[in-house]
Amino acid sequence: MARTKEVIHKINLAIVVTTFSTFDKLELDLIDELKKSTDVIVVFNKNDIDVIDKEKENTIKQKGISFISLSCTTGNNIEELRKLLVQTGSKIHVENSTIIGDLIKQGDVVMLVVPIDLGAPKGRLILPQVQVIRDILDNDAVAVTVKERELVHAMAELKKPPALVICDSQVILKVSGDVPDSIPLTTFSILFSRLKGDFKEFVNGTRHIDKLKDGDRVLIMEACTHHAQSDDIGRVKIPRWIRQYTGKNLEFDTVAGPYMDKDLLKYNLIISCGACMINRKEMLSRIDSSRTVSIPITNYGMAISFTQGVFERVVKPFKEL
Amino acid sequence: MARTKEVIHKINLAIVVTTFSTFDKLELDLIDELKKSTDVIVVFNKNDIDVIDKEKENTIKQKGISFISLSCTTGNNIEELRKLLVQTGSKIHVENSTIIGDLIKQGDVVMLVVPIDLGAPKGRLILPQVQVIRDILDNDAVAVTVKERELVHAMAELKKPPALVICDSQVILKVSGDVPDSIPLTTFSILFSRLKGDFKEFVNGTRHIDKLKDGDRVLIMEACTHHAQSDDIGRVKIPRWIRQYTGKNLEFDTVAGPYMDKDLLKYNLIISCGACMINRKEMLSRIDSSRTVSIPITNYGMAISFTQGVFERVVKPFKEL
Repeated sequence: MARTKEVIHKINLAIVVTTFSTFDKLELDLIDELKKSTDVIVVFNKNDIDVIDKEKENTIKQKGISFISLSCTTGNNIEELRKLLVQTGSKIHVENSTIIGDLIKQGDVVMLVVPIDLGAPKGRLILPQVQVIRDILDNDAVAVTVKERELVHAMAELKKPPALVICDSQVILKVSGDVPDSIPLTTFSILFSRLKGDFKEFVNGTRHIDKLKDGDRVLIMEACTHHAQSDDIGRVKIPRWIRQYTGKNLEFDTVAGPYMDKDLLKYNLIISCGACMINRKEMLSRIDSSRTVSIPITNYGMAISFTQGVFERVVKPFKEL
Repeated sequence: MARTKEVIHKINLAIVVTTFSTFDKLELDLIDELKKSTDVIVVFNKNDIDVIDKEKENTIKQKGISFISLSCTTGNNIEELRKLLVQTGSKIHVENSTIIGDLIKQGDVVMLVVPIDLGAPKGRLILPQVQVIRDILDNDAVAVTVKERELVHAMAELKKPPALVICDSQVILKVSGDVPDSIPLTTFSILFSRLKGDFKEFVNGTRHIDKLKDGDRVLIMEACTHHAQSDDIGRVKIPRWIRQYTGKNLEFDTVAGPYMDKDLLKYNLIISCGACMINRKEMLSRIDSSRTVSIPITNYGMAISFTQGVFERVVKPFKEL
């Protein structure tokens, strides 16, 4: 039960598997708690050896919760459960439905600048880049993908300037020099902080970098425990850039994976990773934590653009501001 | 041991885990068989409770095989095994190193036409499309990705015609109409039949479609047992297109997953899927099977282009012919 409660803040659908004979106050309390933040389905298993309890069925019904009685042994009603899962799942609003649909229109040419460095996976693109290309196609627009070195050449091949340029945060300095001010420019990280997180909260948190003082503590918050490289973005590059930009004597700590709200209290700023390994709900729960303890929060992409002096330009394309 | 022998034709590296005390003729014979077609590493486990046998070490050494003595219990030498794996693995030539590197040059604009139909994965692109975009970037060129509906518009946005257009086989008829004959055009399937398979063998096999006679049998060979859709490409569309094109009364069978060489004998043509789930080595072994029994072999992409009357155009960009 402890492990169940630990994951409530990150799930989008809970399936409570029980039987009519064992269903009791424990299950009822759990369902009430789950209901507050997620969809719930109750599965009464073992209907080949257990008897239907109409009273318990009614209790569930009154709560407006879907339920099904089935048997894993005989396979009875398993197909019905599948249908119920699909039906419930298709109504769950997991992520925002479009990444850049509100920023572009049909026929627009969107330029994506994708550096191929040692960190890039062999023979692939990273998922956020693929998702943006797909979203451009879904919006009846044209995706032009280049490395930063070919960007100027690629723009020269177009009859009109692109409607939008999106680049990796790590090359924003070079790209912002190559792309005329009249062309809207942003980064993949900033696009995804709308999708996974709270854009305005992050923008406000980013501006707090200017208010950091000597001796302040910054928490680098990573979603997963990945294998850190020698020039790790969270552990090495971002602390270096923020120290250089602010000129302040700051202390940086890193937390990877789960953490406790009370551990956040000693920090003056939280910088979260892009959260590629966690879902929107878990990211929002992290932002809630920082809000609870009143600590500004931003993410890698915005912090990088800020320290490179291009922050106002890369958030300009967004109507949220 | 039977299951080990079953996979020899598709693996690129064999790790034989044994101990000094148990290593005997069985292991030696296996190593000799593995050596014929793959790299081999021998791991002597349990070095915390087993003693090193210099004689057995020498036998392995004389065969030119790498080996290591370690303990999974204490963790001794595990890191060394990792290094040995990386070192051996980096020398294995698994797939051709470039997809279109020989077809384009630095700065070229390559147009990719990607239909977004019901079969497309939600919010993504399929892997071959991503791999081609990456290969374009690796060759210092520019990748323009569009749906088939925006293709004409996208070409009009360019100052010069693209150096190459690559489209999904299923839209080749529309795309070949939209792209002037002066612009080289091919399909993703045909590109990948160079990477995963024997291009010339497939081209020859494709032309055999013209020689099919009434009563001939065609084998549709799928690499995996995927969940077939109602308008399944292998089971429904390709048989229909080939019947329409040839006007012959043909019989089609489908085999999904492993098969026996002798089962191929009754067929006049084999049409293989794109093999996205198997590696080059396994695909080449399938082509060898068809060669052994002297049956022409082609793949989905080439067969589709052939039945749509655009085959000679889509193989023209390749110097192999």
